[in-house]
Amino acid sequence: MEAVVYRGARTLRIESRDADPPGPGQVAIEVAYTGICGTDLHIYRGDLDARVGTEAVIGHEMSGRVAAVGEGVAGWSAGRAVTVMPTRSCTRCAACLRGHYHICHALDFLGIDSPGAMQSTWNVPANLVFPLPASLPLKHAALVEPVAVAVHDVRRARVGTGERVVVVGGGPVGLLIAMLCSARAARVLLVEPNPFRRAVAEQAGIEAVDPQATDVVALVNRRTATAGADVAFEVSGSAGGLETAVDVLTTRGRLVMVAIHPQPRPVDLHRFFWRELELFGARLYRRDDVAEAIRLIETGAIPAERLISQTLPVQDVDAAFAALEKGGDVMKVLLDWHGGARDAGVGR
Amino acid sequence: MEAVVYRGARTLRIESRDADPPGPGQVAIEVAYTGICGTDLHIYRGDLDARVGTEAVIGHEMSGRVAAVGEGVAGWSAGRAVTVMPTRSCTRCAACLRGHYHICHALDFLGIDSPGAMQSTWNVPANLVFPLPASLPLKHAALVEPVAVAVHDVRRARVGTGERVVVVGGGPVGLLIAMLCSARAARVLLVEPNPFRRAVAEQAGIEAVDPQATDVVALVNRRTATAGADVAFEVSGSAGGLETAVDVLTTRGRLVMVAIHPQPRPVDLHRFFWRELELFGARLYRRDDVAEAIRLIETGAIPAERLISQTLPVQDVDAAFAALEKGGDVMKVLLDWHGGARDAGVGR
Ligand SMILES: [Zn+2]
Ligand SMILES: [Zn+2]
Repeated sequence: MEAVVYRGARTLRIESRDADPPGPGQVAIEVAYTGICGTDLHIYRGDLDARVGTEAVIGHEMSGRVAAVGEGVAGWSAGRAVTVMPTRSCTRCAACLRGHYHICHALDFLGIDSPGAMQSTWNVPANLVFPLPASLPLKHAALVEPVAVAVHDVRRARVGTGERVVVVGGGPVGLLIAMLCSARAARVLLVEPNPFRRAVAEQAGIEAVDPQATDVVALVNRRTATAGADVAFEVSGSAGGLETAVDVLTTRGRLVMVAIHPQPRPVDLHRFFWRELELFGARLYRRDDVAEAIRLIETGAIPAERLISQTLPVQDVDAAFAALEKGGDVMKVLLDWHGGARDAGVGR
Repeated sequence: MEAVVYRGARTLRIESRDADPPGPGQVAIEVAYTGICGTDLHIYRGDLDARVGTEAVIGHEMSGRVAAVGEGVAGWSAGRAVTVMPTRSCTRCAACLRGHYHICHALDFLGIDSPGAMQSTWNVPANLVFPLPASLPLKHAALVEPVAVAVHDVRRARVGTGERVVVVGGGPVGLLIAMLCSARAARVLLVEPNPFRRAVAEQAGIEAVDPQATDVVALVNRRTATAGADVAFEVSGSAGGLETAVDVLTTRGRLVMVAIHPQPRPVDLHRFFWRELELFGARLYRRDDVAEAIRLIETGAIPAERLISQTLPVQDVDAAFAALEKGGDVMKVLLDWHGGARDAGVGR
């Protein structure tokens, strides 16, 4: 079998290995598509070497088919289309004991902390495998993981019909959040400086503005008779984006912190006090978020095709990472592990 | 009648005025006791001149008795013991229309934006007057307003039985929050550098630690097997206090922002993301918070007597403000408008 192995900053190698059979409690999955996300890019740049090491099989967005099952695993037949929730919780820590298993203090993130999806056959714990509807193309199913992130983020905000939502940052997760809020009949404004990303959003019916050309706070205030937005999502990771997300909010407005801000940021806490604003951290997803993500892609509520900028054969993994690193005209990039052949079985 | 009039920084004058009769919709209250809070101290120092002016009757914590009613007011008889919710909302702004009347965008705060309680006869809108139980001493009832603040803060955090709570800042509001959480069978730790305030807390059965002598985060982690606290209240207004309040929190922990931080503060947003922490701004109170505050003081759940450091005749208003400004051995200071005579009627 083949695996994409991270061998240090900007060095990915496709290596041949003997395939291990699935261990007890595991399912062996023949991988069809893998997505590349921001975290993969961080690994690629060497930012996570301390955690990942320099011989890691990376990747955590994927779809595939069951190849075999290990001892004690029942209910899966070979060929079944599946995806994987790549987060394994310890069941024993304070978070797990309180039901917050998805942010387990000892979380094992497959593709970061242990071998990931970028290998032609991937052995994973059976309880992390989710069946896919037969009608769902495997290519689209490779988006389940990022869609689950967005589902979780929107759930944290309890977005309701008719609410005014501002999404700051229009990468894949920001755009997915905007789409989900729009599907909930909220009135959504996406804030994104990259014109390609704005165009993708507009094509999906999401209004998108350039924060370098538009005073976003003034725009929201104008549209709401100075009331402000009900919900803001901070997906940009920038100081300016954070400021916008706080400043657009109405009384009791809700801010969901999706982006990673590695350094402490100045926050206008007086505005939190004065308007009784609320802030919710949102990280990863729970099982019901994954199930909902599958449903949303299957029904077309999330137009997967619009989000996929490129699909490249796995042999072009370097080009795929380079395209993402360059930025510009790119949203989601997939790696195809079998030249699309594995999708043939689903009839499209 | 007499009124305490703010005439510029550190200048309070007791002035004699003709008493206006209550206008339509108003109740005239013979004031018995007024409390002095942090905001009054800010006014005294000249910090709020732009908002208050320099001929303002200040004060918003009080108790008294109905003296007369204006046109169209029914249901109040002279002598009835009352307190006042000193916040008047506009009914028309975006906050009011959404039910958040207590943080109305055009809020009229009596004692800041319009004449306050430090006058022997105070005319207020009838709908802001709350009746007091006959068994509740008027002296204790002067604490209703700050207790209502604390009730609102604790409600924002949804503090539950057995939860670990850290209150950062042990002034009157911090101590009241600690008492209320303790009454809800939470396990409370108060963080306060002032030894007098710690002693008052300890006498009320609240564990209090000195952040200059104790590593609060390490202490909480030790007691919770590294899990952390469920709820933190930031009541200190200091950068260090804020940091402690964030750092003690467990996964999905809730931080309530009670204190005023006039300048943006660096906040560890990565921790909010990573642990899915939640932040709730909390300002003022709603009608049900005031009603609950009255009940809590009446039943003794809030030991009002412990919180009152001094009661001075109104003629000593300068000494009262000076004592508060000096800090040290002081919690709540009351002004007595009638030498305590008005309490005689309630039989104690
Ligand atoms: Zn765990
Ligand atoms: Zn209003």
